[in-house]
Amino acid sequence: MLKIASAQMEIHPGHPSTNTNTMLHFIKEAKNAHADIILFPEMAIPGYLLGDTWEQDAFLRDCEACAADIIAASDDIAIIFGNVAVDWRKKNNDGRPRKYNACFLANKGKLLHPEAMPYPFVIKTLMPNYREFDDTRHFFSLQKLARELGTTPASLISPVSLKINGRRWNIGCLLCEDGWSDNYEMNPMKLLREAGNIDFYVNISSSPYTLGKNEKRHRVFGAEAKAAQAPVFYVNNVGLQDNGKTVYTFDGSSAVYNSAGVCVAAAKPYEEKLTMLDFSEISALPPVIHESSSEISQIYEALSYGIRKFLSKIRMEKVVIGASGGIDSAVAAALYTSVLGAENVLLVNMPSRFNSETTKGLAHELAQNLGCYYATFPIQESVEHTMAQIKDTPIELLKTGKKIQLAVSSFTAENIQARDRSSRILAAIAAAFGGGFSCNANKAETSVGYSTLYGDQAGFLAALADLWKYQVYNLARYMNETVFGREVVPQATINLVPSAELSSAQNVDEGKGDPLIYPYHDFLFRAFIERWEKATPEDILQWYVEGTLEQRIGCEKGLVRLHFKTAKAFIADLERWWNLFCGMAVAKRIQAPPILAVSRRAYGFDHRESQNGAYYTRAYENLKEKLLEGAAHL
Amino acid sequence: MLKIASAQMEIHPGHPSTNTNTMLHFIKEAKNAHADIILFPEMAIPGYLLGDTWEQDAFLRDCEACAADIIAASDDIAIIFGNVAVDWRKKNNDGRPRKYNACFLANKGKLLHPEAMPYPFVIKTLMPNYREFDDTRHFFSLQKLARELGTTPASLISPVSLKINGRRWNIGCLLCEDGWSDNYEMNPMKLLREAGNIDFYVNISSSPYTLGKNEKRHRVFGAEAKAAQAPVFYVNNVGLQDNGKTVYTFDGSSAVYNSAGVCVAAAKPYEEKLTMLDFSEISALPPVIHESSSEISQIYEALSYGIRKFLSKIRMEKVVIGASGGIDSAVAAALYTSVLGAENVLLVNMPSRFNSETTKGLAHELAQNLGCYYATFPIQESVEHTMAQIKDTPIELLKTGKKIQLAVSSFTAENIQARDRSSRILAAIAAAFGGGFSCNANKAETSVGYSTLYGDQAGFLAALADLWKYQVYNLARYMNETVFGREVVPQATINLVPSAELSSAQNVDEGKGDPLIYPYHDFLFRAFIERWEKATPEDILQWYVEGTLEQRIGCEKGLVRLHFKTAKAFIADLERWWNLFCGMAVAKRIQAPPILAVSRRAYGFDHRESQNGAYYTRAYENLKEKLLEGAAHL
Repeated sequence: MLKIASAQMEIHPGHPSTNTNTMLHFIKEAKNAHADIILFPEMAIPGYLLGDTWEQDAFLRDCEACAADIIAASDDIAIIFGNVAVDWRKKNNDGRPRKYNACFLANKGKLLHPEAMPYPFVIKTLMPNYREFDDTRHFFSLQKLARELGTTPASLISPVSLKINGRRWNIGCLLCEDGWSDNYEMNPMKLLREAGNIDFYVNISSSPYTLGKNEKRHRVFGAEAKAAQAPVFYVNNVGLQDNGKTVYTFDGSSAVYNSAGVCVAAAKPYEEKLTMLDFSEISALPPVIHESSSEISQIYEALSYGIRKFLSKIRMEKVVIGASGGIDSAVAAALYTSVLGAENVLLVNMPSRFNSETTKGLAHELAQNLGCYYATFPIQESVEHTMAQIKDTPIELLKTGKKIQLAVSSFTAENIQARDRSSRILAAIAAAFGGGFSCNANKAETSVGYSTLYGDQAGFLAALADLWKYQVYNLARYMNETVFGREVVPQATINLVPSAELSSAQNVDEGKGDPLIYPYHDFLFRAFIERWEKATPEDILQWYVEGTLEQRIGCEKGLVRLHFKTAKAFIADLERWWNLFCGMAVAKRIQAPPILAVSRRAYGFDHRESQNGAYYTRAYENLKEKLLEGAAHL
Repeated sequence: MLKIASAQMEIHPGHPSTNTNTMLHFIKEAKNAHADIILFPEMAIPGYLLGDTWEQDAFLRDCEACAADIIAASDDIAIIFGNVAVDWRKKNNDGRPRKYNACFLANKGKLLHPEAMPYPFVIKTLMPNYREFDDTRHFFSLQKLARELGTTPASLISPVSLKINGRRWNIGCLLCEDGWSDNYEMNPMKLLREAGNIDFYVNISSSPYTLGKNEKRHRVFGAEAKAAQAPVFYVNNVGLQDNGKTVYTFDGSSAVYNSAGVCVAAAKPYEEKLTMLDFSEISALPPVIHESSSEISQIYEALSYGIRKFLSKIRMEKVVIGASGGIDSAVAAALYTSVLGAENVLLVNMPSRFNSETTKGLAHELAQNLGCYYATFPIQESVEHTMAQIKDTPIELLKTGKKIQLAVSSFTAENIQARDRSSRILAAIAAAFGGGFSCNANKAETSVGYSTLYGDQAGFLAALADLWKYQVYNLARYMNETVFGREVVPQATINLVPSAELSSAQNVDEGKGDPLIYPYHDFLFRAFIERWEKATPEDILQWYVEGTLEQRIGCEKGLVRLHFKTAKAFIADLERWWNLFCGMAVAKRIQAPPILAVSRRAYGFDHRESQNGAYYTRAYENLKEKLLEGAAHL
């Protein structure tokens, strides 16, 4: 009756030729399977996250040329696909050529014209402009077009009518955000419904993976299908796209919702595949049981896919990892080995005199468990050479002839070790090994810059920098239990107190470790960045006073009282980390490697920041004063 | 009659308390001078470039509390000021509280209500969403509000009416972009004109400095004042604001245009100052003669101001500079010394065996000319230690027991030197000296990543990274002639062939230097990034074929033929740099220091990019094939 093929394709952003070839390949496959119609994702030809590549006219012309090939291939199949649409006679608000994020429907070598549109394509109505999205920077929305034409969006929205096998089908075409209208003043799906009898809806998307997003989409799209009493086809791409600093996996997870709002077909996440479905069979299909995959299995899947695709994108096949014996580098090592195989991973232990036999042993044990390349590069000699060189070299103020000698503080000495490891050893070894070296920072460290620039913060990719410390531990356990099925990350590493081992004050054998109390600070920092209503010291202190802090930020009960005996101690800790979060940590994040995003809010382009330093509101200062006064009266 | 005070204040972004204090101080000064009205810039309370700080509700409440103080101070003066306005009952399209970029007019302790507005403030109508601007991400525009209310922007736009000394004044309030309506479908100033008899216009702005912007504003605002036949008061802030990677100076340059469109008052750039003007005197004021300050003097002013403010923002007082004897580090040294004084600058020469006596001598000569601190830290010993350590350390593949040794290529050896200098020496010395170390990269190097990550690309700030190589030379000459009035940057450094001196192939005494032909590549790369219609290889090759390339990109005539004997050689060069520009250079820029912006398009947040690799359009490939075929037939 109506055979619909849905192409969950991998999109290579910024490479229209490659994507067009993929599409032509899928079109051929769909034709061979006698499909009547094939669906492709949003921006299938150009890709979606392209930075300011949209400002290159030659690139836009190329996208148009590629689209011509797709349209030509629609001789005996209908093709719905996303592409940039350019109206060269009109302007965007930046003065450059007018661009729309558009959905095309081609059939018999021609584009079909949505009845009420001034163009032969459907224009994206709702433009996401939060998190990693910059749609309004590049594309003219349907609302703006309506205003320009002196009309309303409602009057421009209409289904596309398609005749197949003698029957006419009214298709409601939506682009991604058009299906997520909760916070907008209009609901494109409702407007479509009011504009005509819709047989089914197609939502072409280019939607990055985020923890929890799929579950939410099932609810939202299911409800919309039910309200419309018509099936919804959701087509999303797979692959990897980035905004420079923040790297997103696209999980596809294309799905079909029947007219009762039940998900009746779902493509496997991260798999490039053509799925066929007969329209007449939809009502008879059983519900898809979404295996309630755990958060950590989703994280592993996203990270391992993301690493594989990122490496292939930058044509890197080998990775060097500085293995300290601690948890972060151990998890990074297991993760990369699971993706690349042991013969492409080199673990390097780089002890100074502060590294314990315990951690040196654990680094070696980890490497043995993985079976990868392993080497020890001691740094003590080089570090001492650097410190001596600094202390012994005379420095002269030439205008007066005054001579000074520099002294090396213990803090500086710690950073010298960290930089010696990454910038002297790892960077050089990686080049010699024919690959890159990884940054193993987690999200808690990244939040407050507990790392050394050009030291442990360096690397070609920060694969764990969107995971809180507790998620890093969970990932270690998950990989041992499920991915490897044996103890790869040594249990002793999981049990170890986290420590930088950069001074005698950080002795793991004596249980001396990081200044971060991860079971509390993970959740405090999460409230700073991931909470929808971002928390600041004012909110935190208010909750502390109310006694609701632990519940609000989601950490274990009793931790606050356990770690902070007085309000003064609590406030000192809060300000210490807030100062770093807004201060030095911002400076460090500006120079940090790209971050692989999995959370609801990742550092980088997803969470934009300025180097403005910490600020405390008046309400915070008042509350603090009251609290400390109160304490003084005790 | 009507005494108007215009406050060109320094705004500290993200610090409402500080800004409010500044404003209260200026209000007092204006009252003392019997001003009737005082004007403050856009977003005077919160600051403008704040990243996603706008998502902190506590911050928004603080801005409201600060505004209450300003309103309370309007007992005997009218105050026009910019602030964020929050409608807590409504939502932005991201679901967070509704925020407007707003202009308030307070008088007698109360806010005045623009007649046609649903709020007691004027809402910014045009929202810049290009270059460094993200207005639409955070603020709800007047257009959106009009749509929500089922009306048109025109029906909401109206003057604010203010009674002073018994006379009623109709003031047309505009916010920044509202005065730059060329590419928008509406002209807020024209709508204001149609809405009522306007006595004068006020444009409150927060407009970052960009080369050429002031000249353009004189033309645009002058024309608008003339069309409206009413004076325009332009109030802009001074200070420094950033988007993380890209740092902007705000030059103020507040001005008054009379009703004939002539600029009759102009505040000194970069100066925090209150300017008084009597309305009745405007028509009698003579035109301001804008000294045609040269591009390079403007650049020096912006950079020296930017460096001073950036250092004060991060509380840094001392700077270490790696001085190679070459032009970039020499210019950086002179620039920092002119800002900080010689006693706060330490030049460090770090020779390996590849550094010539020539450049070592020039580095010392530079330091002597500046009178700053100077030291020599040879790196040969450390570099040899690193290379030996890599070659001599056995590496074992633990799953098989196979042993390998790594080899160090000459390319890797070059990078080892660069990282030894920056990450081993400079970073440690800077900490010991009590400051940071500078990144001296120019824009040509930054364009194609001709630098070493964690090596010469490192530093706390890249002050020259928005200057092409020819501008760096111009700045050297300008500082010698005008800033210092003597030869500070040695003429021999200006004459020297630019070279990294990292191998025997880069011998300055033999005239062997960088692979970049700066007089050509400066302009080629400029076409990639700064050109309004961004040029790509397709455009470049087309112009090459047409013979218009040199004229189009603005380089000297004859260079193309001189350097590229054949089309094949031309294409090889073009693809070499385009591959780097879109490839490794993007990866390096992601981890680059903040860049001080002066140009029409700076790297970082101003020019957003994804790590997508080079792409060549079909049209390029066809053109190339034709050209190379043609060559084959010769």
